[in-house]
Amino acid sequence: MKIPEFTTNEDVMFFDTDCAGVVNNIAYLRMIETCRTHLGATMGMDFQTMGSKQLFPAVVRTEIDYRIPAKLGDKITIRGKLDKLERARFWCSFIMTRHSDEKVLVTCRQSLALVQMNGDKPAKPIRLPQEWRDQWGNQDL
Amino acid sequence: MKIPEFTTNEDVMFFDTDCAGVVNNIAYLRMIETCRTHLGATMGMDFQTMGSKQLFPAVVRTEIDYRIPAKLGDKITIRGKLDKLERARFWCSFIMTRHSDEKVLVTCRQSLALVQMNGDKPAKPIRLPQEWRDQWGNQDL
Amino acid sequence: MKIPEFTTNEDVMFFDTDCAGVVNNIAYLRMIETCRTHLGATMGMDFQTMGSKQLFPAVVRTEIDYRIPAKLGDKITIRGKLDKLERARFWCSFIMTRHSDEKVLVTCRQSLALVQMNGDKPAKPIRLPQEWRDQWGNQDL
Amino acid sequence: MKIPEFTTNEDVMFFDTDCAGVVNNIAYLRMIETCRTHLGATMGMDFQTMGSKQLFPAVVRTEIDYRIPAKLGDKITIRGKLDKLERARFWCSFIMTRHSDEKVLVTCRQSLALVQMNGDKPAKPIRLPQEWRDQWGNQDL
Repeated sequence: MKIPEFTTNEDVMFFDTDCAGVVNNIAYLRMIETCRTHLGATMGMDFQTMGSKQLFPAVVRTEIDYRIPAKLGDKITIRGKLDKLERARFWCSFIMTRHSDEKVLVTCRQSLALVQMNGDKPAKPIRLPQEWRDQWGNQDL
Repeated sequence: MKIPEFTTNEDVMFFDTDCAGVVNNIAYLRMIETCRTHLGATMGMDFQTMGSKQLFPAVVRTEIDYRIPAKLGDKITIRGKLDKLERARFWCSFIMTRHSDEKVLVTCRQSLALVQMNGDKPAKPIRLPQEWRDQWGNQDL
Repeated sequence: MKIPEFTTNEDVMFFDTDCAGVVNNIAYLRMIETCRTHLGATMGMDFQTMGSKQLFPAVVRTEIDYRIPAKLGDKITIRGKLDKLERARFWCSFIMTRHSDEKVLVTCRQSLALVQMNGDKPAKPIRLPQEWRDQWGNQDL
Repeated sequence: MKIPEFTTNEDVMFFDTDCAGVVNNIAYLRMIETCRTHLGATMGMDFQTMGSKQLFPAVVRTEIDYRIPAKLGDKITIRGKLDKLERARFWCSFIMTRHSDEKVLVTCRQSLALVQMNGDKPAKPIRLPQEWRDQWGNQDL
């Protein structure tokens, strides 16, 4: 079965930039979260299902490399895909490119856990669903 | 009884600024929220009480005037105070000044309601506590 | 000539919400800034022109009313339009509605000035362009 | 000479949290940027020097591990220190702990380059200052 992937687009706004004239390092992570949330929906973690099951993906680790800075008005494409399945974590990877020159601006990997919320009790991470393994576990992600 | 007021201080960081070289208009509202949250605590809405009563202040309206832009490294003082009590809303006002020249950068008024959370049911605004009126209602706020 | 207007759409993401379970009051202003920036481009203030002329719109005042809170996963439409022209300021208005029930969540007005940047010298507001008045000044905005 | 280090403190605000009830992963990076900026000042990169030399530290890579989620009202301590000097990059590390139980919430490493701004020409990374090597290069950072 096809490996989950999703592509989003962003226009760099004033609030994304800082007074060094380029996009602030934190703003890219907001763009990545938007892509990752849509990516998660393709894996069955749409907003409704997350809400009804009270099951949410939580970022466990982020690795992000800033290669070329984006500027105000740049159009950025964020390509996200499922990268690896472990027992209780999965990894997604993201490549951010600029429309105008196709240059890679930022690359990022994030690992996530699935966390079961339970009212006021502490949330706890659960094993990844068996169907994820069935669908995507035998592939060379 | 003394009218509730609270003063916070902020150093302008890169993430507060945008590529026009000054603090982005939205960043001031984050600084104001910090001041307002501490101000709320002096009125009895500390984090513990909010959590245990599931009673939260919700911003209903914001009016903010941007007078002089702050820059990277500026030290800003935010002075917040309770401004007015209505039946179901209260108003706070904020003045943001720059340390170096004492100039007023931003003025802001916000009205807030007290909202009772109730699990998955819709939250609903409640009347302001009688003790607020007793303490601060007869004063020229 | 047609009054400038622009419509944007946003999906509410985790980073837009806070632990009260709804969209944080500040996040709406980021969505409004995105709409306003596109609206400005239709008025001739596209990113390239702003950069080459070093002429930027600066928010002078914001008035925003929070009517109904948006939640995670809500799809929001932001309709912005030019509202009024003054000598050195113009007003834009914004209406944010939720797709699912067409309810008005937030209304907002912002006044802006055009600010001429000039290297390290202080930026200064300028008169609005005559062509704006010619195009949109005689209409009942 | 003493290795540069700096400690900051933050109170978790509503805008730091998301609707999963805990601090959003991106918000920690804002707190880290505040600590890092103060840390940089102790290394000679205070706001005035950065502005007059037009020399800014730029984040090249971030690695961040989310161990325990912080909640609204938590008091967080961020301890940053210089970790390693390379020819053109330096690494800082950060440990975020919660006051109430001294638990480590987040650990983070960031590598940074020094970037020379030059008006409209492209910014370019420079070698780290010799005095940094003299002061901190022979130590077991």
